[in-house]
Amino acid sequence: MKHNKKGLGILTGGGDCPGLNAVIRAITKTAINVYDYEVIGFIDGFKGLVENQYITLDMETVSGIAHTGGTILGTTNRDNPFRYITGGTPEKPEFTDQSDRAIENIKRLGLEGLIIIGGDGSLNIAQKFFEKGVPIVGVPKTIDNDLSATDVTFGFNTAVDTASEALDRLHTTAESHHRVMILEVMGRYAGWIALHAGISGGADVILIPEIPYDINKVVNKIMQRYRLNKKFSIVVVAEGARAKDGEMVIQKMVPASHDPIRLGGIGHKVAEEIEKLAGVETRVTVLGHLQRGGSPVPYDRILATRYGVAAMDAFARGEFGSMVSLKGTEIVTVPLVEAIKKLRKVPLDSDLIHAAKSVGISFGD
Amino acid sequence: MKHNKKGLGILTGGGDCPGLNAVIRAITKTAINVYDYEVIGFIDGFKGLVENQYITLDMETVSGIAHTGGTILGTTNRDNPFRYITGGTPEKPEFTDQSDRAIENIKRLGLEGLIIIGGDGSLNIAQKFFEKGVPIVGVPKTIDNDLSATDVTFGFNTAVDTASEALDRLHTTAESHHRVMILEVMGRYAGWIALHAGISGGADVILIPEIPYDINKVVNKIMQRYRLNKKFSIVVVAEGARAKDGEMVIQKMVPASHDPIRLGGIGHKVAEEIEKLAGVETRVTVLGHLQRGGSPVPYDRILATRYGVAAMDAFARGEFGSMVSLKGTEIVTVPLVEAIKKLRKVPLDSDLIHAAKSVGISFGD
Amino acid sequence: MKHNKKGLGILTGGGDCPGLNAVIRAITKTAINVYDYEVIGFIDGFKGLVENQYITLDMETVSGIAHTGGTILGTTNRDNPFRYITGGTPEKPEFTDQSDRAIENIKRLGLEGLIIIGGDGSLNIAQKFFEKGVPIVGVPKTIDNDLSATDVTFGFNTAVDTASEALDRLHTTAESHHRVMILEVMGRYAGWIALHAGISGGADVILIPEIPYDINKVVNKIMQRYRLNKKFSIVVVAEGARAKDGEMVIQKMVPASHDPIRLGGIGHKVAEEIEKLAGVETRVTVLGHLQRGGSPVPYDRILATRYGVAAMDAFARGEFGSMVSLKGTEIVTVPLVEAIKKLRKVPLDSDLIHAAKSVGISFGD
Amino acid sequence: MKHNKKGLGILTGGGDCPGLNAVIRAITKTAINVYDYEVIGFIDGFKGLVENQYITLDMETVSGIAHTGGTILGTTNRDNPFRYITGGTPEKPEFTDQSDRAIENIKRLGLEGLIIIGGDGSLNIAQKFFEKGVPIVGVPKTIDNDLSATDVTFGFNTAVDTASEALDRLHTTAESHHRVMILEVMGRYAGWIALHAGISGGADVILIPEIPYDINKVVNKIMQRYRLNKKFSIVVVAEGARAKDGEMVIQKMVPASHDPIRLGGIGHKVAEEIEKLAGVETRVTVLGHLQRGGSPVPYDRILATRYGVAAMDAFARGEFGSMVSLKGTEIVTVPLVEAIKKLRKVPLDSDLIHAAKSVGISFGD
Repeated sequence: MKHNKKGLGILTGGGDCPGLNAVIRAITKTAINVYDYEVIGFIDGFKGLVENQYITLDMETVSGIAHTGGTILGTTNRDNPFRYITGGTPEKPEFTDQSDRAIENIKRLGLEGLIIIGGDGSLNIAQKFFEKGVPIVGVPKTIDNDLSATDVTFGFNTAVDTASEALDRLHTTAESHHRVMILEVMGRYAGWIALHAGISGGADVILIPEIPYDINKVVNKIMQRYRLNKKFSIVVVAEGARAKDGEMVIQKMVPASHDPIRLGGIGHKVAEEIEKLAGVETRVTVLGHLQRGGSPVPYDRILATRYGVAAMDAFARGEFGSMVSLKGTEIVTVPLVEAIKKLRKVPLDSDLIHAAKSVGISFGD
Repeated sequence: MKHNKKGLGILTGGGDCPGLNAVIRAITKTAINVYDYEVIGFIDGFKGLVENQYITLDMETVSGIAHTGGTILGTTNRDNPFRYITGGTPEKPEFTDQSDRAIENIKRLGLEGLIIIGGDGSLNIAQKFFEKGVPIVGVPKTIDNDLSATDVTFGFNTAVDTASEALDRLHTTAESHHRVMILEVMGRYAGWIALHAGISGGADVILIPEIPYDINKVVNKIMQRYRLNKKFSIVVVAEGARAKDGEMVIQKMVPASHDPIRLGGIGHKVAEEIEKLAGVETRVTVLGHLQRGGSPVPYDRILATRYGVAAMDAFARGEFGSMVSLKGTEIVTVPLVEAIKKLRKVPLDSDLIHAAKSVGISFGD
Repeated sequence: MKHNKKGLGILTGGGDCPGLNAVIRAITKTAINVYDYEVIGFIDGFKGLVENQYITLDMETVSGIAHTGGTILGTTNRDNPFRYITGGTPEKPEFTDQSDRAIENIKRLGLEGLIIIGGDGSLNIAQKFFEKGVPIVGVPKTIDNDLSATDVTFGFNTAVDTASEALDRLHTTAESHHRVMILEVMGRYAGWIALHAGISGGADVILIPEIPYDINKVVNKIMQRYRLNKKFSIVVVAEGARAKDGEMVIQKMVPASHDPIRLGGIGHKVAEEIEKLAGVETRVTVLGHLQRGGSPVPYDRILATRYGVAAMDAFARGEFGSMVSLKGTEIVTVPLVEAIKKLRKVPLDSDLIHAAKSVGISFGD
Repeated sequence: MKHNKKGLGILTGGGDCPGLNAVIRAITKTAINVYDYEVIGFIDGFKGLVENQYITLDMETVSGIAHTGGTILGTTNRDNPFRYITGGTPEKPEFTDQSDRAIENIKRLGLEGLIIIGGDGSLNIAQKFFEKGVPIVGVPKTIDNDLSATDVTFGFNTAVDTASEALDRLHTTAESHHRVMILEVMGRYAGWIALHAGISGGADVILIPEIPYDINKVVNKIMQRYRLNKKFSIVVVAEGARAKDGEMVIQKMVPASHDPIRLGGIGHKVAEEIEKLAGVETRVTVLGHLQRGGSPVPYDRILATRYGVAAMDAFARGEFGSMVSLKGTEIVTVPLVEAIKKLRKVPLDSDLIHAAKSVGISFGD
């Protein structure tokens, strides 16, 4: 990239999340319109940074992408420049630190620095680059909404929308067939999606990692409804939910090497116990990847646009080592190092849990 | 039911299907508005008929239900009056013929006969009642669209819509992450949903029961795309698809009694083989019950309404032992006995398969 | 276009219609995959043909467009090569016959012929070119579904979906506020959209061009509902509906040159009369362009794909002067000259009208 | 209502808004589950309060209504107990103060007080009743999101969703036909819907009441795009937008008494000027009532549920004369008297406007 203008590099890291393209578009348009930068996007996240693979981002490239899912830059949730696979076998890879090679690329391309859009893992890498002197601004991305340094992340409301619509579909079948229908949603460490979708979709039971459940309490709720002639129940289970005395039972997404494949996650475990204890037909739906894809809802398109513009503003102001964040109705910046410190779990005294319990939803506690 | 008016009974049998309520509404409104009948609906399908459990259906009961999923009458896909559970244990039930008891109820309630909305199984029972002298008109219901006596059944286009939207969601993630994404949809014996959703959702591979697949052909398609720098593929698999040399591998929906549960259906089997043979990250989503629930799309609301009106018309004309059916743009009636004779599979010379292949979709053959 | 391959030109004419891109994609993919053609697309319909403006259509150009609205080729509903504007002023244009210039372009580009996707007007022009010796295959496009030579046209079910969803939205407000809500939909000469959307969306009154209405009958229906304590009504009006003794009152879409603009179409006329005669608060929504845009529903994506493939097949077979058409479940070809002969109006003995009346819908007759 | 329990009355006032039923459900469930109240709902807002028309709200009444639009209690935006129509003619009504009659009803029904869900007008009335000694808690309702005392109101995100989807539909037609498409949305005094929908839907121009526009600036933006070969533009206009030197031109929703009806609002005025000044075909769509109806999006269902629970909590705590409100991520209470003091307009230094301008959106200023 030979140019007289200032240069900026963007990359997206980690799992898919609706709104990534709206962020890329907003950064690029602001960089060009307002600050007169040239912008490049590294391909497939940190891998492109190490391998020096990138595309130029101009007004045409980012035109008409705000409402699309995925990321036009590609992404992986594997590659880490500080521990990069440079040899060995797929089973036994060898890792070396390729961060200096990445920094060399940044220099050779004449970039002032990077805006990195990613989750916990990617922002940790971003912080390490910042500590090595690379000017960095971060944009938080987590569909689970579990980053402590921001109120809401883009993609979350789209995931809630998808899960809520799934509950609407399951509701009618549950009622017609007098069944318990279980929907397993994302949320390994925090139950935000389950909680929001459960309230929105009229769930009877919500099980989240923050509140270990007693299966008897769950069954009691179902039987209590049965006695009121409500012969069906809707249960939303976060994938990281666990019994009071139990461990996490994560559904395996990658097919294993034997056949047939063992795949039951927590949703299936809960289903089995309900069938056994309550004697009611129970069915499980695992929403899985449907939560990460598709067109972002307007809320997320707008939040992603605000994030992108604010990140570029912060970059132009030289506010490096920071991350953009939503606090109330305002976009602010926070130090990256704080952002990655801890997860944002659902507080037990949250008014959302209080509201859910008040309208009769059981958390199995 | 004491009355001076003619009486009609309705029931819904078999699995859930979007549009059932629109049929119930159309029969009821036509019966009351046009033919001056009183209408009752038996609760939970044939079980209500045997146990004499029913509700009165009037204009108020059926108001505002055309756009809702499920059935206000409830349904089961277990109970058969000719082989009814009257003793034993859940593991080892005892069956007796309770069809005379059902007929007795019909008489006692002063009903002229029944309109039965159901799939293959329920229409078989309907035919048996007709043979025993009960005036019957049938309305076909199968989300798989596999009844030979009608061009289209209600609920099918809603299921295609749901599956197609799921493909839209998976598409962006597949592309961003360079993955193969597999969507397993319904269709145990016929691949209509997979075929329609696959064409609509831009699938690269569609596997259906009618065309046993060669996994190497599937992998070839994926690798051919890879070489054209399309590093992702979308595969739609009907649950009844099977390899040329293989057997059907149906996903178990009921949780088993051991833990963790073995659940892998054909989608997971195909995923495992693609990962092994192509070395590409592959993910599976099983759409499951999401296909049977939710608000019917307009096409299905209209078809269900036409079916309901035509069924009542046929009933009033005394055309018993018949079933309503869509032929081209017309609603006609066909003998029930023909309707249940054979499945409507996807013909291998169908212009749909031809069209799919012409735009580059592989069936693994 | 210098090439050793056979050449084909495509163009889209007339108003916007969801599914155009799916047709373009299917023709292009089939032409390249199956018949080894090179394909170009003329820009902005017949204008591009006269002006020799085109783009090359290859696999990349048509990738990922099946689910998008609009047409990547652009369209106009003005330009006619046989009566082409070549001078004068916007107010008083001068027309000349430029069809020979168009034919010259076709020859110079080495095209074997054209596939023309368009409505009544465009297919008429297509027929004229065919009569002048140009090999032509037509693909019918009319959102109103009013072409007599085919059972259904793509785009129609998407328009019905949009109108039906609008009715769902209006329903709740009508009920909460005890109002009459009127939705004016497209359909200047045929009432298909109004009829389908009205049945699907639970309308109480449907007014279509085929059945001139008596406003007193409309008001009677509304008052009759009022007496049954249903203090709201939903009325769907096709833009071409008219009173028994009245003329068509088409809403003007182009702003006029005075201010404020007179815009009331038939929807507003009916609203005014209902308010006057029934004394009930009445509101009008004109759906307008919302019906023509957006992503096609799966039904339309599939039909458009089948049309595109069948058109290319017919072209390759040399079946010129024909148009593809859906008859029942089959795609067939019919002579273009027949296709453009007459409109397909809603037959008064249609089972759709019968069904609508049976469930209590009034047509004001 | 004879009872040993405490009593509570609810009513909904003002225009329709998605989420009203979710609020009613949450108040009722919390009142019964948590605080052991009996709850009644007055029919048709303040009219039911004056006329003593109500229904009992129990768990069954409010079951399954959270996802429905409208209000099961009915509403009007006319009736004011302090200035109630008690005589005269429709053209020249006579008003008297019937507030004492309303208070008498509250006493006779043994109610402790009221929870009033409504907008500016209804909350003003609520405050007056509070000042006369009636224990009142308010729940803010305004689809325009223009109440100063709360960050967001329920219904707003649903309206943005509807408007944003409409823009997606108009986009493809605009692009295919090289047109300017104008969408007129609600927002008489504040441009929140236009601003959010415009950013989400990729508008090129957004006109809001807070920023009087210069039509030449609007035309410049459109022509500038034209020169970049973007031969179409999308303009979102809030109904209360006005030119720098102009007055508000509100679209008349009620049909007038002459024919044809003058209906042009600001959208049509802007369209006319663009056609005249830019010479580009321009079309207007007035979204109207479609923005107020339909099923609330999950965000609104959740916010409405939190509001309902919090209002009942505040009522039970005796926090009368207050209104529930969202501040950041928390639900709090604020004095009613403050809530009704002033409108919440879009601040000119809002980061939303900054973000919109940064990505290239013009406000005509």
